[in-house]
Amino acid sequence: MIKRLTIYGVGLIGGSLARALKAAGAVGEIVGYGRSLAPLQKALELGVIDRYETDIARALEGCEVVLLGVPVGAMEQVLRELQPHLAVDTIITDVGSTKGSVVEAAVKVFGELPPRFIPGHPIAGTEQSGVEASFAELYQRRRVILTPNEQSDPQALEQVRWMWQQAGAEVIDMPVAHHDEVLAATSHLPHMLAFTLVDTLARLEDHDDIFRFAAGGFRDFTRIASSNPQMWHDICLNNREALLKMIQRFSDELATLSAAIERGDGEALLKTFTRAKAARDSYCENNG
Amino acid sequence: MIKRLTIYGVGLIGGSLARALKAAGAVGEIVGYGRSLAPLQKALELGVIDRYETDIARALEGCEVVLLGVPVGAMEQVLRELQPHLAVDTIITDVGSTKGSVVEAAVKVFGELPPRFIPGHPIAGTEQSGVEASFAELYQRRRVILTPNEQSDPQALEQVRWMWQQAGAEVIDMPVAHHDEVLAATSHLPHMLAFTLVDTLARLEDHDDIFRFAAGGFRDFTRIASSNPQMWHDICLNNREALLKMIQRFSDELATLSAAIERGDGEALLKTFTRAKAARDSYCENNG
Repeated sequence: MIKRLTIYGVGLIGGSLARALKAAGAVGEIVGYGRSLAPLQKALELGVIDRYETDIARALEGCEVVLLGVPVGAMEQVLRELQPHLAVDTIITDVGSTKGSVVEAAVKVFGELPPRFIPGHPIAGTEQSGVEASFAELYQRRRVILTPNEQSDPQALEQVRWMWQQAGAEVIDMPVAHHDEVLAATSHLPHMLAFTLVDTLARLEDHDDIFRFAAGGFRDFTRIASSNPQMWHDICLNNREALLKMIQRFSDELATLSAAIERGDGEALLKTFTRAKAARDSYCENNG
Repeated sequence: MIKRLTIYGVGLIGGSLARALKAAGAVGEIVGYGRSLAPLQKALELGVIDRYETDIARALEGCEVVLLGVPVGAMEQVLRELQPHLAVDTIITDVGSTKGSVVEAAVKVFGELPPRFIPGHPIAGTEQSGVEASFAELYQRRRVILTPNEQSDPQALEQVRWMWQQAGAEVIDMPVAHHDEVLAATSHLPHMLAFTLVDTLARLEDHDDIFRFAAGGFRDFTRIASSNPQMWHDICLNNREALLKMIQRFSDELATLSAAIERGDGEALLKTFTRAKAARDSYCENNG
């Protein structure tokens, strides 16, 4: 049981965790805090939080765990705001999509990653955002990655792990750099491709006709291009190295495919498509 | 009413049309024909066709419309097989995903696009294939593009239009070259990106871990990478010019995005993502 959980930034991610923990009876009181009042009022109305505070000191008072549900680009500033008011035994965790940059921000503010700051990342979400879109089942059978280091407080780590498990998630520990590489490949690169595809088509002269004749596959393929632009702006700038490496690998493979099409190399095309189909089908078999 | 419809190649596309026309009472008899026996027997068992023939002359006997449900790469050979047995009043149509190459094949075989050959392309399908995957509702509220030319027989054109309308589709006429450009942008390019993405990840050293942490968005984004490799091989080789142009445009935009990430140009990123999100959201609003 977490006696008091403070959520800094009550959106889709923080709101869904709050709902799940309440449903599981895993939390005493949930306190909301954030830069703008409207989402906090909405969260209170929806029963997602029990109260909200507009003063950071009051928001952190007696809080056992503070969850940072803020964009990764805001992390350093948020940590600076928290620092003077943090009790020595408060556990900090976050939900940022990049972890190297969060650790960097912590080092800038605290001189190190505080032992009771356990960076985290739930691999879940929708293309929606905001507390209105939150729901208690978001983390059911989803994975949450934690990136503790050797100085991390074991009790803090277990508390954060337990919290996500109560929300229905499977929790996995991973080194920071590996997290950022894996996510660059499986999430950040696909988002770049979806944004770029939609933007490429939108800039064609006959874009009305183009979109008119897009079939069902196109809707699925481009769903993630409806994601929050500000959040993806932050992710790009905070996982630059790993993301640029993945874009380069993808571009090289696309150039190879393009060359095969150009020279009419049917064998190479068939080989690539067959290999990709096998990998995708096997991914689906292994992931229900 | 079409008294007798012959379907050459009874798979997902031909099978679904057969089911829809039967459900609408729009067809007398449906005759199946194809290179291998197994799908024809399956189609007969499932009640998708009324009978099948193993001799092309018998398959075309008394047939009012012949639908070519074969991969675009097989079109020329199939037309050569048909030619000696076609009655002068038989209407031909096809369902190929590329239209320029189909017209070329017809010109090679007949010396021109026969006036009663109306090239067509239903913008519908799933990543499945085969008659087992066929269903009568596949074309409901979907679009079918026909690419007649100035020599096309108006009565044949109206018959093919009527047939697809009976299956629930909206039928649109379009010049061949425009069809191939629009489809390169909305279907062929996205498939190339999905195949290439999955293949890129499958070739990474830690691909097991990579796929393990792929989230829900990844499943949607890569669904089309489970499509039939042979069919996509054919499409690539038969819409080379338009597809290569689209891949180039996409690659240029991806390089621009990558450069913006590299130089940390948040403004450019935000602008691109915002424009893409607006285009995608508006596409969804306009397409239910």
